[in-house]
Amino acid sequence: MSSGKGGGGGGKGGGGKKKEVKKETKLGMAYKKDDNFGEWYSEVVVNSEMIEYYDISGCYILRPWAMEIWELLKEFFDAEIKKLKLKPYYFPLFVTENVLQKEKDHIEGFAPEVAWVTKSGKSDLEAPIAIRPTSETVMYPYFSKWIRSHRDLPLRCNQWCNVVRWEFSNPTPFIRSREFLWQEGHTAFATKEEADEEVLQILELYRRIYEEFLAVPVSKGRKSEMEKFAGGLYTTSVEAFIPNTGRGVQGATSHCLGQNFAKMFDITFENDKGSRSMVWQNSWAYTTRSIGVMVMTHGDDKGLVLPPRVAPLQVIVIPVPYKDVDTTAIVNECKKTVETLEKAGIRADLDTRENYSPGWKYSHWEMKGVPLRIEIGPKDMANNQKNLFETAKQKRDACLKVVNTWDEFIAALNDKKLILAPWCDEEEVEKDVKARTKGDLGAAKTLCTPFEQPDLPEGTTCFASGKPAKKWSFWGRSY
Amino acid sequence: MSSGKGGGGGGKGGGGKKKEVKKETKLGMAYKKDDNFGEWYSEVVVNSEMIEYYDISGCYILRPWAMEIWELLKEFFDAEIKKLKLKPYYFPLFVTENVLQKEKDHIEGFAPEVAWVTKSGKSDLEAPIAIRPTSETVMYPYFSKWIRSHRDLPLRCNQWCNVVRWEFSNPTPFIRSREFLWQEGHTAFATKEEADEEVLQILELYRRIYEEFLAVPVSKGRKSEMEKFAGGLYTTSVEAFIPNTGRGVQGATSHCLGQNFAKMFDITFENDKGSRSMVWQNSWAYTTRSIGVMVMTHGDDKGLVLPPRVAPLQVIVIPVPYKDVDTTAIVNECKKTVETLEKAGIRADLDTRENYSPGWKYSHWEMKGVPLRIEIGPKDMANNQKNLFETAKQKRDACLKVVNTWDEFIAALNDKKLILAPWCDEEEVEKDVKARTKGDLGAAKTLCTPFEQPDLPEGTTCFASGKPAKKWSFWGRSY
Repeated sequence: MSSGKGGGGGGKGGGGKKKEVKKETKLGMAYKKDDNFGEWYSEVVVNSEMIEYYDISGCYILRPWAMEIWELLKEFFDAEIKKLKLKPYYFPLFVTENVLQKEKDHIEGFAPEVAWVTKSGKSDLEAPIAIRPTSETVMYPYFSKWIRSHRDLPLRCNQWCNVVRWEFSNPTPFIRSREFLWQEGHTAFATKEEADEEVLQILELYRRIYEEFLAVPVSKGRKSEMEKFAGGLYTTSVEAFIPNTGRGVQGATSHCLGQNFAKMFDITFENDKGSRSMVWQNSWAYTTRSIGVMVMTHGDDKGLVLPPRVAPLQVIVIPVPYKDVDTTAIVNECKKTVETLEKAGIRADLDTRENYSPGWKYSHWEMKGVPLRIEIGPKDMANNQKNLFETAKQKRDACLKVVNTWDEFIAALNDKKLILAPWCDEEEVEKDVKARTKGDLGAAKTLCTPFEQPDLPEGTTCFASGKPAKKWSFWGRSY
Repeated sequence: MSSGKGGGGGGKGGGGKKKEVKKETKLGMAYKKDDNFGEWYSEVVVNSEMIEYYDISGCYILRPWAMEIWELLKEFFDAEIKKLKLKPYYFPLFVTENVLQKEKDHIEGFAPEVAWVTKSGKSDLEAPIAIRPTSETVMYPYFSKWIRSHRDLPLRCNQWCNVVRWEFSNPTPFIRSREFLWQEGHTAFATKEEADEEVLQILELYRRIYEEFLAVPVSKGRKSEMEKFAGGLYTTSVEAFIPNTGRGVQGATSHCLGQNFAKMFDITFENDKGSRSMVWQNSWAYTTRSIGVMVMTHGDDKGLVLPPRVAPLQVIVIPVPYKDVDTTAIVNECKKTVETLEKAGIRADLDTRENYSPGWKYSHWEMKGVPLRIEIGPKDMANNQKNLFETAKQKRDACLKVVNTWDEFIAALNDKKLILAPWCDEEEVEKDVKARTKGDLGAAKTLCTPFEQPDLPEGTTCFASGKPAKKWSFWGRSY
């Protein structure tokens, strides 16, 4: 691929002349990531044209710069789960009160956030109808109907849809919104072994989305009993960490539901010996939150920084008019360059807008996180992706703090660290830690117990209770 | 491609031995298409495993056999509109009462069907919030914000999402459901000419979905003033016809909204002369209804019949064990055939389920509409697609009745014909026809005024009013 054609130059921070251009909207960021992270984040998602705030609090408009990333992630994930024999379904948005309440722990977990439809037109409905916060209770009555024999297993459903959780705490674009997009997989197996295996297969796909596509380092691990999915048997997750705020953020979850829902919804099958058994179930999901985690991880004071693999545009070509050079010739040369890039499978475009100076255009595309230099080739982009990941990983790892005592724990928490601590694994102790750390910033809790466990020497005690420690777990505040 | 391998045979109506198989669920259809169309339709969408009825009336579960068709249509349509520079968006599910009511004709059209959220958890919301029945009012306040100058035009948004219309009349799977899936395109232009052009570009894509993919013949035309989109300037549509019930069915609509919404939502731009103009807007959509129209058109008394182009499986290979022949060898041969087909880009699979006889399998896949014979090659499938379309077209055309008088009109209506009649194009007359044809089966109305107009000799009078006729229009009962 040729480089430096058509007036090239520019690049991150590149200038450009601003003469003879009258009306240009103001570009650039008012807030700095390290000074005011919250305002910086709002500004970057809006200015990069990913998000528009909507007139209902907690709801956001996803613009093409976000949706194109979502589509790229979807394309990868959908192809991978189809290899695992997942089939596409679409279940209704609505669920009756009666069905929603069937699994007790489950409804207790979701009840406060459920949105209820009570009217249509000017009439009251006979009974209120819930909007799905997740679809276990929507789907499982039909699993009961469809699954008769071991030949109907495994059953593997996936749907891409919207869900609604009417939360009142701190709505944040992508990270915590009242409506969001996700995929939810729901599967049923004859044996626990098959279910256990799938939980980890899916978790690995989630790791790949974060690490390979979004260049965000995550830890795979298991959630504590307090933090697991309401009504499930155990929950695994990928956990990311935001150094600027010192908060963990749950990236995606892969749950083994065990036989709890099978019992409540009577999902049984005739096994090969002719008697009836209950199925083993999983459910798993990742959401548009993943885009927000990526923005928080890589963005800088000039705006968004996009990993090349998910950048809707990987290269932008900007013609720079020179004195005494025919502009048409320059533009034609740029077009050829874009065509060459596109043929090589690179997402490239040309910014020929008039009335914007090259300098304004550079800043605009920098704000949107596109690598600007047209001489960048596929190899450079792969390196760029790797560098983004390595940088993010170094920053995350620099926040890691291993603590052994309560005083060390409190110091690390105040210092916004990602805390790894030996724990006795007792729910009462986790509750106690929550109670003792309550405050304006929110209480500390377990993020996950990482699958990669450091040595735990005989005699190690829990940082909080002083009892014998059973495992190392990540602790911290989270989103 | 080799033919007749691995025990081939079978095909539409093919038998198969049923020995030594004990428990098989009953297959086959209880109702006949010509005798009881309504029951037949419900049965075919359920037995083919496209639809599961849900415990909320008017909501349905879309199973893989429907969703895979939806995905194939989406793949085609999405690629085509991306060529037209449409960008993906996702706007919220919810809209405030205040904004929803901004365009008066529009809200009058949709108000009776709007579902309202009034509670979250146990708390009442401050004000009820509507679930989108369509997204004009959700989107256009932001169009007003995003569009400043002629350089921001055209603006072209598309979203794939669910919408809710809480209708009370005859819910029917795919055809009339309270929640359905669709794409909705919303565009804004500087000139009416550009808007007009796009209306027809999109209508042509809708025609292709119906005729080329679903093998369903449709008429392109323009809706009457009474039947046009609430709040729009004019509506074009593709209209299909179901010979069995003698009803028209609106296949998809492409609306020019004119400047009505631009006025209400203040969507203006600075034109190249420095003064402000209102934009011209379109909106257009097609829904999962398209799948229902396909089922109604092609299905027969043995079940679903799928046009090859949208069949999730185009070929099913069924091993038939023979005396003294090693079953493993037969199955291996079948596998090779499937691999060969898949390499040729054909969606093929092998049914190796044990405990089902070849005969049961043939009936099962026939019910689901898959062409069974493994010797079918790509050419046969293209012919099959063409034959389905030609057959459907002949049946539709056989229902066409040109009428000139009221008596002929009533006779044709009772005879369940697709009626083409000369009309004076007066709204009062359409209202009068509706009033005079009211009854159990519903009133007759205009379907569309086809773009392809027969000659209208000087002196032709309206079939209903006797006034001079202005055009030929399709009339009938509709879904």
